[in-house]
Amino acid sequence: MLDPHIYRELCAIVGTENVAVEKQDLICYGYDATQMEFLPAAVVHPATAEEVAAVLRLANRCCFPVFPRGAGSGFTGGALPTGGGVVLVTTRMNRILRIDTENLIAEVEPGLVTEEFQIAVEKLGLFYPPDPASLKFSTLGGNVAENAGGPRCVKYGVTRDFVMGLEVVLPTGEIIRTGTETYKAVVGYDLTRLLCGSEGTLGVITKIIFKLLPLPEAKKTMLTIFDSIDGAARAVSTIIGAKIIPTTLEFMDYATLQCVERRFNLGIPAEGRAVLLIEVDGDSDLVDKQAARIQELIRPLGLVQCTIAKDAAESEALWKVRRLVSPSLRDVNPHKYNEDIVVPRSKVPEVIRRIETIQRKYDIPIVNFGHAGDGNIHVNVMINKEIPGQEEKAHSAIREVFQAALDLDGTMSGEHGVGLAKQPYIEMELNPAQIRTMESIKLALDPNNILNPGKIFPWKGINHAA
Amino acid sequence: MLDPHIYRELCAIVGTENVAVEKQDLICYGYDATQMEFLPAAVVHPATAEEVAAVLRLANRCCFPVFPRGAGSGFTGGALPTGGGVVLVTTRMNRILRIDTENLIAEVEPGLVTEEFQIAVEKLGLFYPPDPASLKFSTLGGNVAENAGGPRCVKYGVTRDFVMGLEVVLPTGEIIRTGTETYKAVVGYDLTRLLCGSEGTLGVITKIIFKLLPLPEAKKTMLTIFDSIDGAARAVSTIIGAKIIPTTLEFMDYATLQCVERRFNLGIPAEGRAVLLIEVDGDSDLVDKQAARIQELIRPLGLVQCTIAKDAAESEALWKVRRLVSPSLRDVNPHKYNEDIVVPRSKVPEVIRRIETIQRKYDIPIVNFGHAGDGNIHVNVMINKEIPGQEEKAHSAIREVFQAALDLDGTMSGEHGVGLAKQPYIEMELNPAQIRTMESIKLALDPNNILNPGKIFPWKGINHAA
Repeated sequence: MLDPHIYRELCAIVGTENVAVEKQDLICYGYDATQMEFLPAAVVHPATAEEVAAVLRLANRCCFPVFPRGAGSGFTGGALPTGGGVVLVTTRMNRILRIDTENLIAEVEPGLVTEEFQIAVEKLGLFYPPDPASLKFSTLGGNVAENAGGPRCVKYGVTRDFVMGLEVVLPTGEIIRTGTETYKAVVGYDLTRLLCGSEGTLGVITKIIFKLLPLPEAKKTMLTIFDSIDGAARAVSTIIGAKIIPTTLEFMDYATLQCVERRFNLGIPAEGRAVLLIEVDGDSDLVDKQAARIQELIRPLGLVQCTIAKDAAESEALWKVRRLVSPSLRDVNPHKYNEDIVVPRSKVPEVIRRIETIQRKYDIPIVNFGHAGDGNIHVNVMINKEIPGQEEKAHSAIREVFQAALDLDGTMSGEHGVGLAKQPYIEMELNPAQIRTMESIKLALDPNNILNPGKIFPWKGINHAA
Repeated sequence: MLDPHIYRELCAIVGTENVAVEKQDLICYGYDATQMEFLPAAVVHPATAEEVAAVLRLANRCCFPVFPRGAGSGFTGGALPTGGGVVLVTTRMNRILRIDTENLIAEVEPGLVTEEFQIAVEKLGLFYPPDPASLKFSTLGGNVAENAGGPRCVKYGVTRDFVMGLEVVLPTGEIIRTGTETYKAVVGYDLTRLLCGSEGTLGVITKIIFKLLPLPEAKKTMLTIFDSIDGAARAVSTIIGAKIIPTTLEFMDYATLQCVERRFNLGIPAEGRAVLLIEVDGDSDLVDKQAARIQELIRPLGLVQCTIAKDAAESEALWKVRRLVSPSLRDVNPHKYNEDIVVPRSKVPEVIRRIETIQRKYDIPIVNFGHAGDGNIHVNVMINKEIPGQEEKAHSAIREVFQAALDLDGTMSGEHGVGLAKQPYIEMELNPAQIRTMESIKLALDPNNILNPGKIFPWKGINHAA
């Protein structure tokens, strides 16, 4: 229950119509793409940085936690209102403020949906590469807060690589600008990149200046099927070794293939054990040349089938195989833990082998697909929670999957972040000195621990009454 | 004078032969590429992270400042021992630890010279693009600490974009790893990028994991001369607008041209008012196509002369024009203030016009050249300090140049950082809330303000006895 005094103050800041406190209005701001649920005490929908700042100043004065939220499409609970408190939704701040075609930059508000932004810049012949799977509903503020990735990152980099500057409301309620409108800029500490991937714990993003690229002239999509995981993995190294960095190098293992084939009957050859969906983009002559060269390079590696799209419609048909993965996974088991480990590219076959061993040990299906070009594998542990013991088994299996990634010089997460979901495991990756350093930065910026408290670290900080 | 007790402890840590306290040995660690000079109390040359950590723990215990230093080639005094104290030189830690050709990463020590690293990776067909002008002597640790740039950044990005992880000794003497060996990684705050460009104030870098690229197959160099600054600037926008991002787009103004021509008689046409040195790299067919297209695009923009290099020797001859700039500047006046403002690309002509006005107002020569592709202009204010009043005039002119850059949505520094040299101006660019936020991070990581104190911010912190 929200203190009536706080309710009145929130209404004074954002307007009564932009404050929700009734249970039916709160429920849908208590969950995200994880399977966790919480109930906030209130939800506010500010329209400006000044309103966000006023909410945070009130939170510091009255000591309640604030949980910033975009579309709530996160996979690790970064936007969940764990301690009750106030959910601060950014979706009213969803404008494109400008697209500067001469300097290839754009300024947007955080609530803008990723795909809407991509469409707008592409109309002008420009390009915003980061493409998280959630791009049809995720917001750019959320993308920056989580440092979102996607298939195209192997060539173009992650969200961080496109953020030039921010307007941020600090946890104390101060509004600052970080970065500049120029790509080169070295005056003071790089607060821009510190905020990228800080999962809404260090500030509320209220404006973003993005770097854009010219839209590539052409692209070429190839669906390649191999008779072994090793063949597909060697194809990745061979292509990059031949100085071609494709836009995407999407990988699907045998379990994934079986799921898709069982449900959709695409006619994938029976001897197929792994798929690589390869796309190159750029100059139109060059993409043809690269596609031909790739075919030549991968033929000796156990290539079973190679289909090259002749046009956009054929390309779309090839991408369909990749897009059908998620909907077909539910046939395996109703509940999914979607992890996103990363290992150095050359170690993908080894980590897949280790995951197969883990799967056999716990006897639960694990389906692997993802971004082989940067070693980022989505490990989907599929269980049925109705079956006693499966949830515990899943957590043990996930711990071993993380350990395998770490043993191979990788990380627990390439795209999803820590949030709440990976918090129980964070001490496997970060040692006490690293965690202490990060916590000291959090406390330096948020002395009352108001903003998204209890996330990322196993935080032993201040408790708040909801 | 160093306390004999501290001297003994330093000798116990790094060995007597790696501690200097005699004035003749200290002098050369008291200056850098600025014209400022200081004298440290001692210089130590550690060989390992453990030795660096022990020096920093001693500094915390005995309360003396520590100034990390690579090659001392910085332009803003970031390595200068302002408060006496101990200079910690990283040049003994200069090994390439490994180059992983399959995963395109390398691990190096901070004292390695930039160009030595580039040569080593190029022998393996790999590529480390950042190319600060000092690359023949600057160290990679210094490059990371300053987030160094260079001509090739317009296409490839700055040093930060190639740093995947670090080993760092925190100011407290704790050794931590940041980042990972994978490009995608989102577990915890991005300490790696926070340290990039922090100018040696937040930690001593003891290992660096770099991302590498495949070495481009071919390159094509073009020297283009225009009859106006506007023509050259419009060429930059036109080329990028045509979806070609050259590797370099180096700009020289009329004053620069005159300097070079006066000294070296290269036969630059009399009607030439601005030069663009353009280089494209990549696939060999593509670079030919791009060079031809660029020529076609810029012809209507007042192009006076366009020379395309046919081979590496001709390319070297064209680059000579650019390389002769620095040695010929001294003919204008003996003392140089080399600033490195950045403005959005389209505002380069406007900022050059404003600089011309400033030059006329103060009646001191200002010579401009630099990286037009990313709007990063080196503004060289040339004076003779023997002439009374010139130094004061220079400082006033520099303040106005910075103001012009800031008025045009730019920054005071794209490559050189703040250090000491830009500290008097920092409040023109950063407001009190931004500075307070940065200072709070410094204090969170360095509670005793031991590491490179007094740099970047007009710091009102703890004073140390030397």
